[in-house]
Amino acid sequence: MSLHWWQGPCQPLDHVARAKAEARQQQLTKPAGSLGRLEALAIQLAALQGSERPRLDRLWIAIFAGDHGVVAEGVSAYPQAVTGQMLSNFVHGGAAISVLAGELDAALEVIDLGTAVPLEPLPGVRHLQVGAGTQNFVQAPAMTPAQALICLQAGCDSLLRARAVGCELFIGGEMGIGNTTAAAALACWLLDCPPAELAGPGTGLDVAGVAHKVRVIEAALALHRPQLGAPLQALVHLGGFEIAALVGAYLAAAQQGVAVLVDGFICSVAALLAVRLNPGCRDWLLFAHRGAEPGHARVLQALDAEPLLELGLRLGEGSGAALAVPLLRLACTLHGQMATFAEAAVADRPA
Amino acid sequence: MSLHWWQGPCQPLDHVARAKAEARQQQLTKPAGSLGRLEALAIQLAALQGSERPRLDRLWIAIFAGDHGVVAEGVSAYPQAVTGQMLSNFVHGGAAISVLAGELDAALEVIDLGTAVPLEPLPGVRHLQVGAGTQNFVQAPAMTPAQALICLQAGCDSLLRARAVGCELFIGGEMGIGNTTAAAALACWLLDCPPAELAGPGTGLDVAGVAHKVRVIEAALALHRPQLGAPLQALVHLGGFEIAALVGAYLAAAQQGVAVLVDGFICSVAALLAVRLNPGCRDWLLFAHRGAEPGHARVLQALDAEPLLELGLRLGEGSGAALAVPLLRLACTLHGQMATFAEAAVADRPA
Repeated sequence: MSLHWWQGPCQPLDHVARAKAEARQQQLTKPAGSLGRLEALAIQLAALQGSERPRLDRLWIAIFAGDHGVVAEGVSAYPQAVTGQMLSNFVHGGAAISVLAGELDAALEVIDLGTAVPLEPLPGVRHLQVGAGTQNFVQAPAMTPAQALICLQAGCDSLLRARAVGCELFIGGEMGIGNTTAAAALACWLLDCPPAELAGPGTGLDVAGVAHKVRVIEAALALHRPQLGAPLQALVHLGGFEIAALVGAYLAAAQQGVAVLVDGFICSVAALLAVRLNPGCRDWLLFAHRGAEPGHARVLQALDAEPLLELGLRLGEGSGAALAVPLLRLACTLHGQMATFAEAAVADRPA
Repeated sequence: MSLHWWQGPCQPLDHVARAKAEARQQQLTKPAGSLGRLEALAIQLAALQGSERPRLDRLWIAIFAGDHGVVAEGVSAYPQAVTGQMLSNFVHGGAAISVLAGELDAALEVIDLGTAVPLEPLPGVRHLQVGAGTQNFVQAPAMTPAQALICLQAGCDSLLRARAVGCELFIGGEMGIGNTTAAAALACWLLDCPPAELAGPGTGLDVAGVAHKVRVIEAALALHRPQLGAPLQALVHLGGFEIAALVGAYLAAAQQGVAVLVDGFICSVAALLAVRLNPGCRDWLLFAHRGAEPGHARVLQALDAEPLLELGLRLGEGSGAALAVPLLRLACTLHGQMATFAEAAVADRPA
């Protein structure tokens, strides 16, 4: 059996740069440790970038969109037409992530992996149309293995475009009505956890809606579990086009040596899947926030991830990751620009 | 008895602007509530600024510095000379807050309220020199009532300078070797809480150092408690010059209608004192972060404050508040610039 591309080795961390950054942190004009997690972040980014003073000027945000057949089961508060409408909103600048990308001076790429409602080509959107959304996974596998491979490659291709323009931080976002159901189903299988512990309100289900979503996921797991032996099979049977693309982007980022900032619940499930496919990927993932979806905390725990923010976000689109970017940038700027005790003629302790 | 200036009324909130901002939030192209705390922040800032779409372009950071006589008791890991050395570092751009102010395009004002080691005048520093630091409050009141009034006025004056140039958000920072001891002593009195529950390592005491700090605060409280009947007396007996200035700045901000972003433990104690002196002040205070000092969480709780960040910060200088500014700005930008459902032709639920 031949190896898939994503099983190739990930880039190693630069331990020399890390050690230099650690030494520099100790010399800056502040009590050691007083910048808390920002110090560790700067040191981690130094190891990822192979530079004593890392920078995060060039930011790439890729939004992967796709529809979900399981919406036929009534698991979302919104109609599927919204997926396509939001693609238009992304490129016209009205969506949250569009506003954030502008403020952060980030490149924003929008990739249509397949909507249920056929779309006219939208200028600024890459239309891949892998299918008219996934199949309803209560009845059949969500996608074919060939579709999964195309989506994984689409994520990889986006990362390669980002790298070609010198991207220093990659953010993947997602849009897809129904995708918290797919993500929760995947997480249940990956964590061997009952749906009642991971399913949540998504964009706005009420208590009865969440209970129904739990039953839908239980039915899907009962149908597919006998066929699921490996993470890639789980992606095919329970995933989504945009989730597969995120997995591919994260794996390619680790192989290419590009730091990733992971967004919310759906992205974190994609990150967990990526780490299961290639554990070396984990080193390249930073985590932005702990969102409102109850399963998010469980997935982050499984990844041993401590995100930076906890603001009750549940929008997706990469918006939570974008909101954390200024903290990462300020961590780098403080690390790079603060004076040392010697430069500023400030007494370091002991007194 | 005549009223002190800070007892005058605080500006009321603009409930019309708040209602308009709330209505706008419901129309933006995202599930209602999906931007979590950023939505409430934008609405709160609308009420404070009297504008449906608030802005935070003009930011003013004032650093208040002063020394503390209680350092003679061995409560800090650093020598008092550092206070003056850091004043120089602030204006020469090498300190954390200097770097942050530059990145945030903020005005940075540095005010010397009195250092133990005499200083040559530093260009860019306002030298008020209210005294050569406070008295050792284990033996005597920290300051005279006249010194407290001068410091309160110094804070008010800084706020008025900020307002004169159209400041939309005021950040007070502090620098003063030993000031976590003064802040903890004040918090113990304000919250009627034993020192062992509020004293912490500050910039870097070990366990024995913290235990000694607790005994120092206990001794100070035992000495002064019979004289303490009101918050202003506590400030005189247990406070610091920079803490008094922060109190004055916060009170003046509320009276002038300028939103404040409160930094860490010491600033939060000043905020608590300000609210005790004039409860209307509370509406104008936003809280940036929950820091590493153990007493901080207790003080925030007493203020019913839920800060935005929790990153293990313990630097002071206003640095934690500065780090939270991008989140506030992005909350305003999202609120002001996102498209509505109608503008973007996106279907709102119900489906």
